[in-house]
Amino acid sequence: MSTTAREIHLVARPEGPPVPGDFALVERELPDPGQGELLVRNLVISVDPYMRGKMAGRRTYTDPYELNAPMDGGSVGVVEASGDPAFPVGTTVLHGRGWRSHALLPAGSARPVNIRGDVPAGIYLGALGMPGQTAYIGLVDKAGLREGDTVFVSGAAGAVGGMAGQLARMYGAKRVIGSAGSPEKVAHLIDDLGFDAAFDYKAAPVREQLAEAAPDGIDVYFDNVGGDHLEAAIECANDFARFALCGSISGYNATEAPKAPRNLFQIVTKRLTLRGFIVGDDPERMGDFYRDVAPAVAEGRITLRETVVDGLENAPEAFISMLSGGNIGKMVVRVSD
Amino acid sequence: MSTTAREIHLVARPEGPPVPGDFALVERELPDPGQGELLVRNLVISVDPYMRGKMAGRRTYTDPYELNAPMDGGSVGVVEASGDPAFPVGTTVLHGRGWRSHALLPAGSARPVNIRGDVPAGIYLGALGMPGQTAYIGLVDKAGLREGDTVFVSGAAGAVGGMAGQLARMYGAKRVIGSAGSPEKVAHLIDDLGFDAAFDYKAAPVREQLAEAAPDGIDVYFDNVGGDHLEAAIECANDFARFALCGSISGYNATEAPKAPRNLFQIVTKRLTLRGFIVGDDPERMGDFYRDVAPAVAEGRITLRETVVDGLENAPEAFISMLSGGNIGKMVVRVSD
Repeated sequence: MSTTAREIHLVARPEGPPVPGDFALVERELPDPGQGELLVRNLVISVDPYMRGKMAGRRTYTDPYELNAPMDGGSVGVVEASGDPAFPVGTTVLHGRGWRSHALLPAGSARPVNIRGDVPAGIYLGALGMPGQTAYIGLVDKAGLREGDTVFVSGAAGAVGGMAGQLARMYGAKRVIGSAGSPEKVAHLIDDLGFDAAFDYKAAPVREQLAEAAPDGIDVYFDNVGGDHLEAAIECANDFARFALCGSISGYNATEAPKAPRNLFQIVTKRLTLRGFIVGDDPERMGDFYRDVAPAVAEGRITLRETVVDGLENAPEAFISMLSGGNIGKMVVRVSD
Repeated sequence: MSTTAREIHLVARPEGPPVPGDFALVERELPDPGQGELLVRNLVISVDPYMRGKMAGRRTYTDPYELNAPMDGGSVGVVEASGDPAFPVGTTVLHGRGWRSHALLPAGSARPVNIRGDVPAGIYLGALGMPGQTAYIGLVDKAGLREGDTVFVSGAAGAVGGMAGQLARMYGAKRVIGSAGSPEKVAHLIDDLGFDAAFDYKAAPVREQLAEAAPDGIDVYFDNVGGDHLEAAIECANDFARFALCGSISGYNATEAPKAPRNLFQIVTKRLTLRGFIVGDDPERMGDFYRDVAPAVAEGRITLRETVVDGLENAPEAFISMLSGGNIGKMVVRVSD
């Protein structure tokens, strides 16, 4: 018996914004799992900004995606056939072979997760997954958040940004400010996520809006955007402010070198610390993350909206849309029920 | 009895590179020192890059210089009349009222220093003064230098840069690379200061020359220059490299916002840490600095060349020249013998 898997392959490396033709839906027969393997039917798969980097041909901190092969990415699925007694059929698992309907994988690369009641499977791709972990590591370890800090989060209506803002509040920030790309997202930050102030970065220069939202300056900046957001944060920073640099989505689709902040000398005069980071570098902190954050998510003190796209065949469009801001909260693709 | 002091006043705020007309030599009668005051005849005064910032009208980390008043700055002088028995006439002191022939100052703001044998008074303005302290704090505390690091120092033929390179070597760097602005300075770095590699940043793009000088990348960058040097250092950085940002002399005379590095996203992918700093923030480290560095200077293991200009009236020219690279090592002005 074999299983027909549908997979999204990268067939061309995007120049500028990805287009549907960079991807192809391919069917493949998967054999039954061997000893120590699992066959998993995916429920939801993740599309994340970092994947844009892997579509380019250069190595950054991970290898690029191969052409004409299924892409990797976070996914939650159900074991359909098992070669490992620790993972009986029916077990829900988190694993790294997304972008496909079914995955054959070593049991050691899967982690069982609890899906109870109305908890959506996607929570392990969002609030309790890589985005939540990224927000936690960046805010607590890299920016060294302290009680009473004023915190600015860019791209705050995204998965990482939304978690960063809420965690800042949970850990005692005095004031949490977010930027996002539409009035609807701004309302979401204020009304749903409890930000103290938020602004639409498309409505007026970031520098002006941030100065207005942070009249006493900022102590921490969580950067998902780069470019003019980073420049504005430097301009608005208080002495000894700490920046956690997580991403630069403003530049991911750029074909020219991005415009850069022209006020970097203020890093000296204000004694700023800028720290770039990657969530995977700190696996020893994951236990602390679950201990601190899972209860808050379970109790609803922290919430992360999902933007759900149905159907594996729509995953490329979901990804393309997410890169240009088409999501609120975590963008996931529902692959099966 | 009074003393006629000659003082350099700032009479206009420079636009772009300072010109002699921005300064004026002014004579002033100083009264005898009162209780707790000292009258000091200056031997040498310091001209330093940071002073350019204080000539502009904006506050950065210190107040700007006032117009039509003597500028402040490091100086070593001799007590000529004393209102404090702890500072007898003839005591050599380090103090902050440079840019003048004689200074009247509170005894509490002066520090006695030893001038013995052939030690030039200027050593307290250079190797054992603010530049040496800056190099030490930046390299040890901010960049967290470790044994085996490859270290790049920009502006390495200046006072801070020369000290940073030599301290890197003393603390166990595997390879020390410097940039400077002339073939003569490059030779000085290699032949006199013991750098492993050095290049003339005017001869070819910094990025190319740094890549050639650091085939295995850099782990620490000590930045005195900013701009294209910072961009090249980011490009050449190894994962987890640490940058101490001390200054941006490439931009001090600029009238337009400087060009900025266009590769800042590499701060994320390479997990870099950039830390701006000001030497005065860490007074508690000065004891450690003298303990570690003074013996090395006394024994000649660390040397810092002086570029000496004679005559207070030439101090503005010395300053203007230093800003455009007219010095090797520490630029000082000899005011009296």
